Amino acid sequence: MKPRIAVDVMGGDHGPAEVIEGCVMAARDLDVEVLLVGREADARAALAEGAPALRIVHAPDVIAMDDPIEAVKAKPDASINAGMGLLRNGEADAFVTAGNTGATLTAALLRLGRIPGIARPALGMVVATGEESLTLLLDMGANADSRPAHLVQYAHMGAAVMERMHGIASPRVGLVSIGEEDSKGNQLTIEVNRALRASDLNFIGNVEAGQLPRYAADVAVMDGFTGNIIIKTVEGVSELFFGELRRAVRMTPWNLAAGLVLRSELRKSQRRLDYAEYGGAQLLGVEGVVFVAHGRSDARAILGGIRAAAEAVRTDMLAHLRDIAARVPARDGRA
Amino acid sequence: MKPRIAVDVMGGDHGPAEVIEGCVMAARDLDVEVLLVGREADARAALAEGAPALRIVHAPDVIAMDDPIEAVKAKPDASINAGMGLLRNGEADAFVTAGNTGATLTAALLRLGRIPGIARPALGMVVATGEESLTLLLDMGANADSRPAHLVQYAHMGAAVMERMHGIASPRVGLVSIGEEDSKGNQLTIEVNRALRASDLNFIGNVEAGQLPRYAADVAVMDGFTGNIIIKTVEGVSELFFGELRRAVRMTPWNLAAGLVLRSELRKSQRRLDYAEYGGAQLLGVEGVVFVAHGRSDARAILGGIRAAAEAVRTDMLAHLRDIAARVPARDGRA
Repeated sequence: MKPRIAVDVMGGDHGPAEVIEGCVMAARDLDVEVLLVGREADARAALAEGAPALRIVHAPDVIAMDDPIEAVKAKPDASINAGMGLLRNGEADAFVTAGNTGATLTAALLRLGRIPGIARPALGMVVATGEESLTLLLDMGANADSRPAHLVQYAHMGAAVMERMHGIASPRVGLVSIGEEDSKGNQLTIEVNRALRASDLNFIGNVEAGQLPRYAADVAVMDGFTGNIIIKTVEGVSELFFGELRRAVRMTPWNLAAGLVLRSELRKSQRRLDYAEYGGAQLLGVEGVVFVAHGRSDARAILGGIRAAAEAVRTDMLAHLRDIAARVPARDGRA
Repeated sequence: MKPRIAVDVMGGDHGPAEVIEGCVMAARDLDVEVLLVGREADARAALAEGAPALRIVHAPDVIAMDDPIEAVKAKPDASINAGMGLLRNGEADAFVTAGNTGATLTAALLRLGRIPGIARPALGMVVATGEESLTLLLDMGANADSRPAHLVQYAHMGAAVMERMHGIASPRVGLVSIGEEDSKGNQLTIEVNRALRASDLNFIGNVEAGQLPRYAADVAVMDGFTGNIIIKTVEGVSELFFGELRRAVRMTPWNLAAGLVLRSELRKSQRRLDYAEYGGAQLLGVEGVVFVAHGRSDARAILGGIRAAAEAVRTDMLAHLRDIAARVPARDGRA
C-alpha cells in the first residue's frame, strides 16, 4: 500500500498554492497518496487545472505562524490539529506541515502523545554537510531544558533514523560540546558523554559546533536550546554574507558581471547553508510520523518533506523508535 | 602616566616575531609603555633592528596552546604566569596574551583572583555588527555552567564596558535566547530575563542568535557554553563559505577574474565574521586587566588588543567593575 501522507495546506509563508504545488509534484513523482488538509475552498482554488485529483480533508481553522501555543487548544479545527487527528485515526500514515513549529509540537503531544518510555520528543533535522554526506542534528528546539537521559535517547533515535532511513551502517554519533576532550563541556554534556561511551552506539565523542558544516558525524546530539542557537546563527551569518554579496554586486557593472560568473557556485554554498531547502525536521518520539518543514519552504522543500515522510513510513521508523524506548529507558526516572 | 601593557611574546600561532611586531606598532603609535614577557633570547631575536627598545621581562617557560590546564601550576615560570605576576605586583597595568585561553583564565583566577562579590568572571568580546556599530558578547566561554545571578552580573559588567570604554550612553542590553518573548528560552534565560527586567539596565529583552550579526544590542548576554557554540558556529560557517569560494574561484579563469573583481568587498564580509581581526576577549571580573587575543592573531590584532587594554586602564574599568560587584551582589548566595 502506498504511504498516505497528509499535508497541511495552510502552513508556511508562501500560502496554499506553493504547498499544493509541492503536493502535486509528490503525487506525480513519488509512490505516495497525498491528502490535503486545510480550508477546502482555498485548497480547491490553489489546485491548478489538470493537476491530479487529490483528496481534501476540510479543516476550517488555521493556526498562524505567530499564534501562541494556546491556539492549539483554542482552535481544535485548525489544520495542524486535523492532521494529527488523521494520524491518530489511522486515516493517514504521516503528516507534513510548514506551519508553526511550537503549535505542531504541542498538537502532536496532545493528540498523539509520546511513545511510552520516550522521555521527551526531539526535532531531528537532516542537513547536507558535504557533496555526498548528510548529518542529522537533534534536538533542534523541541525542548529548551534537557536532562542527560533525554540526550541519550536522542542519540539512539538519531542513529536509528540514519541507519534505517539513510542506509548508514553503524552511524557515527557525536555530542555537540565546547571542546573535543570528553571532559570538556557543561555538566549536561559531560554526563551524556559518559553515558554514550558506555552505550552500544558508535559514539565518536564530542564535536565542536564549528566542525558540523564539514561532516563531523552522521548524528550530532545536543539539547534543544543549543540546537536552536546553532540553526539561528547559521541563518544569521548566511543572511549577512549573502546580503553583503548582493550589495557588493550592485555597486558597479564590473561587480555585477563578476557576481553573474560566480553565481552558480555561490548558489551551491547558499543551499548548503539554507536549511529551508531540506525536507524539514522530523519529530521523533511521538506516536506518529510528523515532519515540520521550515516556514519559508517552497514547493521543492514540501516535496522533500513528503519524500522523507514516506521513507519514514516505508522503513517503519515508529516501530524502531518504540524498540529504542524499550531498550533505552530514561533511567533517571524523572521523565 | 602611560598605561604599562605587558604582552605575552610566546602566545599565538604565529610566534614571537608576529606578536612583537604588534608591540612595536603599539609603542610607536599609541601612548603606552609595552613590556615584552617571554623568553629573553626569543624576544631579542625577534626585535627588528631599529625597533624601539622595549623592556623584556624574562619568563623561561611556555604554556602551549594544547597544554592541559594543569600546566598553569606545573609551569610557574611560564609567560602567562609571569604576566599575571606583573599585574599583581603593580609592575604592569594590563596583560595581553594570544596564548591558551583556558590557561589564561586559570592563571588569572589563581594569581589575581576574582573581584570580591563577582561570582564568576566572564570573557567579553567586542565584535563589529555593522559599519559603525559594535556589540559586546559575553560570556564567550569562561564558564560552561551558569546560574542566573552570574548572567545578571555579566549584563552589568558588559554595560559598564560599552559605556565607559566605547562611549555608548545607556547601552542596550539583550539576552540571547530562543525566541524574543520574555517567556521563550530555557529555565536559565527565563529567570535572567525576569531579573534584568527588574534591573536599572536598559534591557531590551531577548535577542535571537541570528540577529546578533546585525547589531541587535550593544551588549549580548549568554552563558559561556552558548557563547562558545555561537563563536564556533560563526567560524565554521565562515570557513565553509570562504573555502567554497576559493575553490570556485580556482575552477576557471573567468571565475578567477570574477573573484578578483569582488575581492575587496568579500574581504570586508570576511573581516566582519573573523573574530581574530579584533582585539580579543576581555576577562571581566578578575582583579586585573587581562585581554586574551585569538591564537590566530596577527600583528594588527595584537595592536588592537594593546589598544583595548590601554583603554581599559585609562577608563579605570577595574574600579567600575568593583563598584558593580558591590551594587549587584550574586544574590543567590551560592557564588
